[in-house]
Amino acid sequence: MQMTVFKSARIVTLTSDFGTTDGYVGAMKGVLKQVAPSLRIVDLGHELPPQDIDAGSALLSHATRWFPWGTVHLAVVDPGVGTARAPIVVASRNHLFVGPDNGLFSHVLQDPHAQVRAIDDRGSLRSLMPPNRSSTFHGRDMFAPVAGWLATGMVRFQDVGPLAQAHVRDLAVPIRMGNTLSAIVTAVDRFGNCITNVNPQTLPKLKDSEGVVQVQGGPVVPWVNTYADVEHGEFLALVGSGGFLEIARRDGSAADALKLGRGTSVTIRFP
Amino acid sequence: MQMTVFKSARIVTLTSDFGTTDGYVGAMKGVLKQVAPSLRIVDLGHELPPQDIDAGSALLSHATRWFPWGTVHLAVVDPGVGTARAPIVVASRNHLFVGPDNGLFSHVLQDPHAQVRAIDDRGSLRSLMPPNRSSTFHGRDMFAPVAGWLATGMVRFQDVGPLAQAHVRDLAVPIRMGNTLSAIVTAVDRFGNCITNVNPQTLPKLKDSEGVVQVQGGPVVPWVNTYADVEHGEFLALVGSGGFLEIARRDGSAADALKLGRGTSVTIRFP
Amino acid sequence: MQMTVFKSARIVTLTSDFGTTDGYVGAMKGVLKQVAPSLRIVDLGHELPPQDIDAGSALLSHATRWFPWGTVHLAVVDPGVGTARAPIVVASRNHLFVGPDNGLFSHVLQDPHAQVRAIDDRGSLRSLMPPNRSSTFHGRDMFAPVAGWLATGMVRFQDVGPLAQAHVRDLAVPIRMGNTLSAIVTAVDRFGNCITNVNPQTLPKLKDSEGVVQVQGGPVVPWVNTYADVEHGEFLALVGSGGFLEIARRDGSAADALKLGRGTSVTIRFP
Repeated sequence: MQMTVFKSARIVTLTSDFGTTDGYVGAMKGVLKQVAPSLRIVDLGHELPPQDIDAGSALLSHATRWFPWGTVHLAVVDPGVGTARAPIVVASRNHLFVGPDNGLFSHVLQDPHAQVRAIDDRGSLRSLMPPNRSSTFHGRDMFAPVAGWLATGMVRFQDVGPLAQAHVRDLAVPIRMGNTLSAIVTAVDRFGNCITNVNPQTLPKLKDSEGVVQVQGGPVVPWVNTYADVEHGEFLALVGSGGFLEIARRDGSAADALKLGRGTSVTIRFP
Repeated sequence: MQMTVFKSARIVTLTSDFGTTDGYVGAMKGVLKQVAPSLRIVDLGHELPPQDIDAGSALLSHATRWFPWGTVHLAVVDPGVGTARAPIVVASRNHLFVGPDNGLFSHVLQDPHAQVRAIDDRGSLRSLMPPNRSSTFHGRDMFAPVAGWLATGMVRFQDVGPLAQAHVRDLAVPIRMGNTLSAIVTAVDRFGNCITNVNPQTLPKLKDSEGVVQVQGGPVVPWVNTYADVEHGEFLALVGSGGFLEIARRDGSAADALKLGRGTSVTIRFP
Repeated sequence: MQMTVFKSARIVTLTSDFGTTDGYVGAMKGVLKQVAPSLRIVDLGHELPPQDIDAGSALLSHATRWFPWGTVHLAVVDPGVGTARAPIVVASRNHLFVGPDNGLFSHVLQDPHAQVRAIDDRGSLRSLMPPNRSSTFHGRDMFAPVAGWLATGMVRFQDVGPLAQAHVRDLAVPIRMGNTLSAIVTAVDRFGNCITNVNPQTLPKLKDSEGVVQVQGGPVVPWVNTYADVEHGEFLALVGSGGFLEIARRDGSAADALKLGRGTSVTIRFP
């Protein structure tokens, strides 16, 4: 099987749960600039909740699809660093993803054409990594060099190591029974918008805004097209910017007012 | 009326209240890089308090003036997204500002020569935006493409849409009565310095450090030239780096010690 | 004495305690881009605890060593701005560091070949800085222009000002008595890993993982090579990515569980 040759955009995005109070993020950027000062480093975010793989997978899914072909995405949320979990590179939709094989790329791997390679850090790649590697910071010592060399085009996806299977976490899918859809809240953003796992595009015969949404033990909320369809302070549901149904409050926080969090059950009823 | 042709610095700054835990900021950066991988993205800050338009306007005023001519500033604090508020581009002092018309550019619009254009997203610009726009994320679907194309120079300010009037929020100005100036604290920074709305340069016949400052219900503070003019732990007032009078404490937080916050009244008395 | 000529990588890293809610960081970036739009700005971190010089020094030590030769590191944690503390440039290991002389470069200055120059802001450099300098924001008005011009290569280290001595803070070193090493925790990272001041490479006749670590009033912890050497939830000590002994907990926070913080005493015992 032949993979598309990646044109090199020389862009490397960075995503992690490291925060920026310590030197971890800076060290990874240093390694990338050491590989090639002309690499274009783009921060996606380093404030993911510590070791929250699901939040990392969702951030990558939301943000990376907008980048040009050939972008390399370096992502590190890595509670298992120093254990047996493999380091991998995922090729998906003409993007490359570099990081640990722990489910961080679960959203990305929903692409049926995605390919995965395990990083062979004992072969020819070894000489492209720092000589004294730590056992606790693969972001700096393995993922950053691999991402950097891939972005320069001097190492190709095929050179990384053997094809492999990657770990994919269960992405909860809503369950449809007749006129009812049982769903959950998968994320709450900074504004208190509650993103569900309902993607109307994947539901046969379901059009936007044709139902109502009932929050577990809470109010029934109309499914509308935009905030302006309800009055100030009222609740609403709409298809958010990531393509998923969201529960929101006009000029307020739905999460605070309705006490919603990740995992809360939500029911959608159709006429 | 003819506007200066902007030389293109190809720099796009980003300011928002999105935080970086979700994918919103990353998605905007992806769109910018999709427009042109060579655009130079510079983060000003994404940790503005959610939907705090005044803080966003102040940050833009403080930071953007230092950038070279031709810089494009993309700013999104947008509680009214999805309602009727217009998307605009402001041209001011050879910089361009792209974002919602909700007062976010109030400081920038104090320039009497500023011009405003409403983004015509149904005309020729439409083909330069993503095909399926969301109603809740104009930062990604409208402002980022417009900012990106402006920075490349391939779309000019004149191409954006018709001239328009922009919404400007009241910027409280101090009131002078004889030897007394009634002012307020407009911002508190991370160090507890309290920035007021007193800009000595705009006050006739007022020289720096010729008066004293009285905090409402608090102490009288000397107006000095620099921190070293008072002892460790003492309060002082001086003209801060943004050009406004600040109340500070040497080696400490004036805001904490004096219980000052945004809106607190302050009186300046002259000899 | 002759100093290596720096090749210019045109990279400027930024480190500060400014946060990004105010315009301070943005203003520094604007000045750098004003000096040369092509400068490559890399954020190391702006969320250092306010005025925490030791944390800044540690971050610089951890992160900057990974950057290519010729990188300029602009760092501002500056409680003494506006007082008599000098502005300096440090040349160390083919990197340049620009900031206040207050101990912020204590780690960097452990290099015996480091050189320091005081910035002469009244000589020829004066014309390369903004005309109206504030007394409270040398980051924008002095350090950013100097860092920018150094990165372009148009100002050389020798042009900055006279050679000087820099202020170095005491870096606590562990004390060895026979089979026992008295050490302290110098930092706690976002994951609850507790970094000590024990650098096994600098201890004669001490190999990695040959002892045990006792936390003051706490448990005895085995010194191992990697997380996978202990079971889920157990404590361990290992040499971390910065080269120092760390106390960690597999899949948890050692700091929380053991109530460790900066300054906590730790004893290492050898067989």
